[in-house]
Amino acid sequence: MRVSNYLLSTQKETPANAEVVSHQLMLRAGFIRRNASGLYSWLPNGLRVLRKVEAIVREEMNKAGAIEILMPLVQPADLWTESGRWDKFGPELLRFEDRHNRDFVLGPTHEEVITDLMRKEISSYKQLPLSLYQVQTKFRDEVRPRFGVMRSREFLMKDAYSFHLSQECMDETYTKMHHAYSNIFSRMGLAFRPVIADTGSIGGSASHEFHVLANSGEDLIAYSTASDYAANIEKAQSPQPTTTLAPASQQMSLVDTPNAKTIAELVEQFDLDITKTVKTLIVRGATEKAPLVALVVRGDHELNELKADKHELVAAPLEFATDGEISDAVGAGPGSIGPVELAMPIIIDNDVAVMSDFAAGANQEGKHLFGINWERDLPMAQSMDLRNVIEGEATPDGKGTYAFARGIEVGHIFQLGTNYSKVMGATVLDENGKAKEMHMGCYGIGVSRIVAAAIEQNHDDRGMMLPEKLAPFTVGILPMNMHKSHRVKEMAEQLYSDLVEAGFEVLFDDRKERAGVMFNDMELIGLPHVVVIGDRNIDAGVFEYKNRRSGEKQEVPFAEIVSFLKNNHN
Amino acid sequence: MRVSNYLLSTQKETPANAEVVSHQLMLRAGFIRRNASGLYSWLPNGLRVLRKVEAIVREEMNKAGAIEILMPLVQPADLWTESGRWDKFGPELLRFEDRHNRDFVLGPTHEEVITDLMRKEISSYKQLPLSLYQVQTKFRDEVRPRFGVMRSREFLMKDAYSFHLSQECMDETYTKMHHAYSNIFSRMGLAFRPVIADTGSIGGSASHEFHVLANSGEDLIAYSTASDYAANIEKAQSPQPTTTLAPASQQMSLVDTPNAKTIAELVEQFDLDITKTVKTLIVRGATEKAPLVALVVRGDHELNELKADKHELVAAPLEFATDGEISDAVGAGPGSIGPVELAMPIIIDNDVAVMSDFAAGANQEGKHLFGINWERDLPMAQSMDLRNVIEGEATPDGKGTYAFARGIEVGHIFQLGTNYSKVMGATVLDENGKAKEMHMGCYGIGVSRIVAAAIEQNHDDRGMMLPEKLAPFTVGILPMNMHKSHRVKEMAEQLYSDLVEAGFEVLFDDRKERAGVMFNDMELIGLPHVVVIGDRNIDAGVFEYKNRRSGEKQEVPFAEIVSFLKNNHN
Repeated sequence: MRVSNYLLSTQKETPANAEVVSHQLMLRAGFIRRNASGLYSWLPNGLRVLRKVEAIVREEMNKAGAIEILMPLVQPADLWTESGRWDKFGPELLRFEDRHNRDFVLGPTHEEVITDLMRKEISSYKQLPLSLYQVQTKFRDEVRPRFGVMRSREFLMKDAYSFHLSQECMDETYTKMHHAYSNIFSRMGLAFRPVIADTGSIGGSASHEFHVLANSGEDLIAYSTASDYAANIEKAQSPQPTTTLAPASQQMSLVDTPNAKTIAELVEQFDLDITKTVKTLIVRGATEKAPLVALVVRGDHELNELKADKHELVAAPLEFATDGEISDAVGAGPGSIGPVELAMPIIIDNDVAVMSDFAAGANQEGKHLFGINWERDLPMAQSMDLRNVIEGEATPDGKGTYAFARGIEVGHIFQLGTNYSKVMGATVLDENGKAKEMHMGCYGIGVSRIVAAAIEQNHDDRGMMLPEKLAPFTVGILPMNMHKSHRVKEMAEQLYSDLVEAGFEVLFDDRKERAGVMFNDMELIGLPHVVVIGDRNIDAGVFEYKNRRSGEKQEVPFAEIVSFLKNNHN
Repeated sequence: MRVSNYLLSTQKETPANAEVVSHQLMLRAGFIRRNASGLYSWLPNGLRVLRKVEAIVREEMNKAGAIEILMPLVQPADLWTESGRWDKFGPELLRFEDRHNRDFVLGPTHEEVITDLMRKEISSYKQLPLSLYQVQTKFRDEVRPRFGVMRSREFLMKDAYSFHLSQECMDETYTKMHHAYSNIFSRMGLAFRPVIADTGSIGGSASHEFHVLANSGEDLIAYSTASDYAANIEKAQSPQPTTTLAPASQQMSLVDTPNAKTIAELVEQFDLDITKTVKTLIVRGATEKAPLVALVVRGDHELNELKADKHELVAAPLEFATDGEISDAVGAGPGSIGPVELAMPIIIDNDVAVMSDFAAGANQEGKHLFGINWERDLPMAQSMDLRNVIEGEATPDGKGTYAFARGIEVGHIFQLGTNYSKVMGATVLDENGKAKEMHMGCYGIGVSRIVAAAIEQNHDDRGMMLPEKLAPFTVGILPMNMHKSHRVKEMAEQLYSDLVEAGFEVLFDDRKERAGVMFNDMELIGLPHVVVIGDRNIDAGVFEYKNRRSGEKQEVPFAEIVSFLKNNHN
């Protein structure tokens, strides 16, 4: 591609209102332009990258045996009513009426449409298993779209759905898709991790998220230093306590603690071991009988809300009681609450169940109890994993310890089970002629989001450093003074035609610009390989080559440039 | 592709509610499924064809120097207000509010978005000319969607836009795009014609439609038997009259014609030459001074409404006066109207201006005037081309005569001029640093519609006969009794792997179905080449080959099948 025939549209200044580096660079490098809040046009540079992402996704889906289809973005509301999501979905679901006043939605996802399609197409177990996918525009009316295409309203997604007679068959395809997803991100040259994830509002039994690792990522991932185990912090399983319950060695005593409203203050003022203290948090209950529930974690631990709200007595999503509700129920403020003689259900973290001689609020304003012991001072409560894991703790597979990394979620795979097929009546006849609800899996990849995530992971202060498989062009040709030097022009043109013929995607900067401007543009867009040609080089018979990622420069004899690039290209 | 891993979804019965053959076949051959009125899912067979259409379009656009971008489907209303089309567009423009009550539309086209984008990106003539295109989903809320994807609400379109400093440069790109469009349809193997078209509501100076020829087409095309000249019937230019005005030879006489309300009745009852009669049609005027206007064409000619409404006195779009309005204005009903002493502006067809001794209504109920002559009986009226052309007449380029064909519009190219750049202020600085409005062209192709049009043109009573470049697969393998005969299975598997390796797109029917069912499916989907393999063939050492289009059968020795298919494949 000649720049003179192209729309390069680079900008020198960092744009206002772009908070994250990928958004800034995508605007500066002519990847995207904003049309309205959360709506973007992809300019040529950006679209080239988007299409490469799309192509790799498509190839790996095909390899995994999924078949491509294309469903409409505009979906009839009655399918959403049937699945129950018309009411469940918030205002992110964009709803509108057509000219005949019929209700429609802009699809944020396609479970309803595919289930409807398949209940009509598939009647026999012989047609199963079947995996279908599409690469399609989605729309989510985000309340606050931000970070460019990272959280836009209209975006490109690959969504796949699989259909099975049994859970076992579902498991097999799930594993195959997990593998396909790993291939996708590996082929793109991205550092990533599949992590065990919460199934969230879509529901289902198993779920993994795929995260591109980047310091700017919104999600915290807890992974094993020695194995493949990795989980979203929300799901990362705490190790079983390594100690057992020790016998009591202290009497329980009521202590005045007027200036200790927090664990930190308590520990400091009374010289306590923080691992001998607990925090008691009051949350709303799920039943009328118990409108409030107490959750107890060790003083140095953090409550994990998503683990807690799985308990049948706890309202989901988890909601904390107000100070007023706590005072009304307990007779003391939140800084003085504890499990002893607390008139509500108490759920404790596994680590709390092995504590002895510990301190907690006394349920009297400005007072704590020290030297509390289970069974002697209060009945042992029901325990479960209620807390976030900590770096350095053992991972549940027994291999290695937890380390944390930040990630950007770019893929999510789910086992939906029969959730949709049940409510929408998607059945097939099995070997015995009996109607059975199909088991379903769903597998999403945020195609446009990958572009932003790849940039978050791969950039420096001069611009993007996209992996070669994703860069908009592979090689840049930068002629110096081509418009004055005939021999430079001739050589540059020859190089361009040689490289194109050799199959490279080449950006040939034939503008009348200063070399500095051209070089900055190539670095900003992040072309992996740049070849400079000037009068000086012609005298010496060598091109000047620069590698974007390593920054290394090298002189390459004219005759060797194609083979040199072939060897250095991946 | 093995059918056992695929979603073939063929149907034997012709579906109800599918009026045209392409819609019927697309449902039967598992190309599409209806989700709601005018909304379709593309199943694997159909999507494969759609993607082939898309790929050819994209390649030819790239060759023509157009650069691909991607604009959002959801567009902010303020751009449409700015261009004036928010008010002009009817309810086909789907409008909705987002969660913050801001107005948006689902884009039926992207002139506003691209003009907005380019007025921000392009500032200098040095960046011009520039052609950009996208392949994007569009939405038009048709009042009566029909014929499947031929007139659906959500559809896939390629739209390109070009930007220029001058009309001359615009002309050049227009010619290049015309050429690219011809390449596109030629490569697809479709019989097509570019025709001179009306510019319609988008406006602009020059316009061509590209039609796929098919007997079922909605449009009538008038083309030259001896040249490239072709025009939509609405635009086809009538030849200049070959005769000149002859002197009067009859007296004008008032004749009682109580039973002649039509030209046919008049001619029959009074033994007149139909070319010596005229029809006078009363239409609404464009000005207050002349609320009604009379249009006169020869008795054997048909009024062309789109030609007529170009006249400054005629309201556009053309509207006929009611019987009541005619009676009030003239004092006689529509069957007795004529140009003599008619108190309103009269516009006559060029062929009427050379008539002498002709008959027309007398503007008295049940009476006609015979032997009318211009100037003697009434002043010569203003004449213009007001009528449809007739097969066999000379074409305006003087080469050949008109023949008619029916077509399906699949492409439309326009010169928009400065229509959009003027209202939206899209200017660039020219060589002298002066701001100039950019000239624009726009170029559309109905990607999904092409699939239907190709089927309308290419089918027989057994199913589709898509050109090889568009067929979902190139070769079908049809094994007989594979599930019983081991050697058939082995041979079929070998053939499958040989053909895939040779680069063919193969559909391998490995189902446990009767040969008849499998053969019917392959003919329905229209695979160009089918290879049958059964025990009998193995004994003889030959495959049975059948060509879908010609119906010819041939035996091909095992070792020659790959080269045979390569030679017969295009």
